[in-house]
Amino acid sequence: MKAFTSVNDVSNVPSFIKEALKLKQAPFAFQHLGKNKTLGLIFLNPSLRTRLSTQKAAMNLGMNVIVLNIDKEGWQLEMQDSAVMNGTTVEHVKDAATVIGNYCDIVGIRCFPGLKNKEEDYTESVLNKFIQYCNCPLVSLESATLHPLQSFADAITINEHWKKSGKPKVVLTWAPHIKPLPQAVANSFVQWMLKSEVDFVITHPQGYELAEQFTKNAKINYDQQEALQGADFIYAKNWSSFTSYGTMPDVKEDWMLTPEKLKATPDAKVMHCLPVRRNVEVPDSLLDSPSSLIYNQAENRVYAAQAVLKNMLESNF
Amino acid sequence: MKAFTSVNDVSNVPSFIKEALKLKQAPFAFQHLGKNKTLGLIFLNPSLRTRLSTQKAAMNLGMNVIVLNIDKEGWQLEMQDSAVMNGTTVEHVKDAATVIGNYCDIVGIRCFPGLKNKEEDYTESVLNKFIQYCNCPLVSLESATLHPLQSFADAITINEHWKKSGKPKVVLTWAPHIKPLPQAVANSFVQWMLKSEVDFVITHPQGYELAEQFTKNAKINYDQQEALQGADFIYAKNWSSFTSYGTMPDVKEDWMLTPEKLKATPDAKVMHCLPVRRNVEVPDSLLDSPSSLIYNQAENRVYAAQAVLKNMLESNF
Amino acid sequence: MKAFTSVNDVSNVPSFIKEALKLKQAPFAFQHLGKNKTLGLIFLNPSLRTRLSTQKAAMNLGMNVIVLNIDKEGWQLEMQDSAVMNGTTVEHVKDAATVIGNYCDIVGIRCFPGLKNKEEDYTESVLNKFIQYCNCPLVSLESATLHPLQSFADAITINEHWKKSGKPKVVLTWAPHIKPLPQAVANSFVQWMLKSEVDFVITHPQGYELAEQFTKNAKINYDQQEALQGADFIYAKNWSSFTSYGTMPDVKEDWMLTPEKLKATPDAKVMHCLPVRRNVEVPDSLLDSPSSLIYNQAENRVYAAQAVLKNMLESNF
Repeated sequence: MKAFTSVNDVSNVPSFIKEALKLKQAPFAFQHLGKNKTLGLIFLNPSLRTRLSTQKAAMNLGMNVIVLNIDKEGWQLEMQDSAVMNGTTVEHVKDAATVIGNYCDIVGIRCFPGLKNKEEDYTESVLNKFIQYCNCPLVSLESATLHPLQSFADAITINEHWKKSGKPKVVLTWAPHIKPLPQAVANSFVQWMLKSEVDFVITHPQGYELAEQFTKNAKINYDQQEALQGADFIYAKNWSSFTSYGTMPDVKEDWMLTPEKLKATPDAKVMHCLPVRRNVEVPDSLLDSPSSLIYNQAENRVYAAQAVLKNMLESNF
Repeated sequence: MKAFTSVNDVSNVPSFIKEALKLKQAPFAFQHLGKNKTLGLIFLNPSLRTRLSTQKAAMNLGMNVIVLNIDKEGWQLEMQDSAVMNGTTVEHVKDAATVIGNYCDIVGIRCFPGLKNKEEDYTESVLNKFIQYCNCPLVSLESATLHPLQSFADAITINEHWKKSGKPKVVLTWAPHIKPLPQAVANSFVQWMLKSEVDFVITHPQGYELAEQFTKNAKINYDQQEALQGADFIYAKNWSSFTSYGTMPDVKEDWMLTPEKLKATPDAKVMHCLPVRRNVEVPDSLLDSPSSLIYNQAENRVYAAQAVLKNMLESNF
Repeated sequence: MKAFTSVNDVSNVPSFIKEALKLKQAPFAFQHLGKNKTLGLIFLNPSLRTRLSTQKAAMNLGMNVIVLNIDKEGWQLEMQDSAVMNGTTVEHVKDAATVIGNYCDIVGIRCFPGLKNKEEDYTESVLNKFIQYCNCPLVSLESATLHPLQSFADAITINEHWKKSGKPKVVLTWAPHIKPLPQAVANSFVQWMLKSEVDFVITHPQGYELAEQFTKNAKINYDQQEALQGADFIYAKNWSSFTSYGTMPDVKEDWMLTPEKLKATPDAKVMHCLPVRRNVEVPDSLLDSPSSLIYNQAENRVYAAQAVLKNMLESNF
């Protein structure tokens, strides 16, 4: 594995999930792999779970970890090729990425979208610069359009909590928010569910359609209550509009999940990637209920990251 | 030891001091204890000594350390239960603490008081949220009302420098400052001195009485010069008013320690927790004199933290 | 080696270069040296290469590393002796440095010049406070007037890429910029070249003369094209005026290196310490050409730092 930026870097999702669950049983079994290897975690945006869980995963594998908040601790990056750098940017991403890649054996990079320019975001211009120049295995710590470590952890969590035979029904339901958020978690969850052994449906208000490059042939149902019928796992998440890019088209109905909406599916598990705006996106009554898997998802971030890093360390890159 | 947030978590102060002094003699003797254990140091406020000494203590014990400036690098935390999070806070402390506790074997947390709301501060609302939710041993790196790692280091330092028989006389003397500071260091020092084998007296101007829950039966003398008579150890520290909470009532006399005030006690040692506003709280002439123990106190922060962490690692939590 | 703040701390530059190149061949050969030793990296200014490469070097040697952005994560430092600290500074550098030195076996410090007060900068007032008080081996991570780890890496790089017999011709050429930069990289490069087996010349516009304490008997040629004749290595770098301190006197000619200017010396290698303002200081066409050594210089930062740290660890300090 030379890069982990989407589900497409994984040859077989179910077997990758099994590998992560094995690591969860014996997290320190592969410390020889990471000896004298350095993971550089580069943040252009804030992070709590990703920062801590990826660091933990690397330490479990015996790696050294360097964390850099590049915009705050380093230099402001120029992203445009051929730019005449007479403005506020101090270092070109080309130079920063090349140097970082030179110092590290694996690089992790977090680069949120600006939500202003759809093309810039959806061509993953920043992530791709790092891939192009860092010249070593690269892990996305959430990019403009995808958050694969989160979705992998989500898939692991669903696998762990599905004890029945057959496929579980998984619903991704749009949630309200007070400001425009990226589509990355939603896009990414869709990608992983479409490669998992689940029955999957997306529900959201008009105007919040996700990019077709990710939803492909996924079932979409604009009626939330209908979509929730028979759900085994319900993933609530806000995202801003893709078509009217980065905006928040008006929504008349109340899309926040409630215990009432789940009366017909009392065994359904509730999921969210965190951080969650409590009582805006999802109410306390669901987040703190026995149905909630939010902390299980967070815990599995360690083993998702560890499976990815282990795979890269074994690749004899 | 499941938590270390005040002297009350220590069964026997004198023997805990002896344990720390043993670690000072052989700091690397217990590295097997920390193998594959992770200490998470979470800062809501700045830190120099605490950050470095606790990290050093953990590394001495073979632990991995993750440092997170949560408000700057992570997300702004919501502290109110049941809050409808439609404002500026992005993550509830409940979720952050649960997740951090899940990734770490021991969590350290620094959360200064706001000095606006006495009840909020004196119920240790933030610290208690972390204790409630992080579900792993927790070390206070200074909370709203107490700074136990500092006071433990202070107690170690007094023990180290008392060569005579009998109890030393220890004086806590209020010092001037230019802005309102927490009472935490003073409260905490009082707590530890009341459990140490010392003769203890507090001196401060009218209006600067500390909370009775900490001072209990401690001797208080409003006459600084009288209090200093026969002192062996003099701890200078500013704090703002507890009764008129967070304010700085006018003080007519000059409360800054001076060499003149110590003429009658030339062998008295001068202490301060640092950082110190030189020539405002304490003059250079005392801080830089042979009587000064300020750097000894700072050095002992490592062994105070190490004794606490070692105890937690041995507790088979 | 008790301090590494300039080339004067190195007894023999050519043999120190050889030592670094040996470490490059076997970076993990001396991990016993760093066991249970702590490197504290203290930043008063941003950093990318220095932060990462020095951390990597220390980890290669088996050391523990603590990074502290002291002004952001710690307390604002007072630099004046005897100051009455009733302003914005919270901790005196005397106290901070003493405490940091106590916690660490080696301290690295980055302290850029203010470019306002020549005397303050050129007496290295901040660096010298740290040297005076930290009481342990100290490595400059770039000070007000010098950047020795950079220059050492530059010297290593020149040595690596000079395959002919005789001395290479090395040219330091001033480059344009949009704001006043320190003279540190240039001063330091001059110092190292004057102690290396090279034929060295400096070229810059009138008004940009470097301090004589560093240039000494170095050749200076105000005609860039003449200076470049027969060059084997060309080091481009901006600096602000030393004589009219911290200003940018007008320059009429275009001093940016171009492929045209190098037509007569097609084999000349182009160097820059990074970060570089592309197409302002040096054009893409040179930075991205096969002649460019910018990434080799950055890579060698690890082995420069490692040679210094190894030497300190071996000194039985």
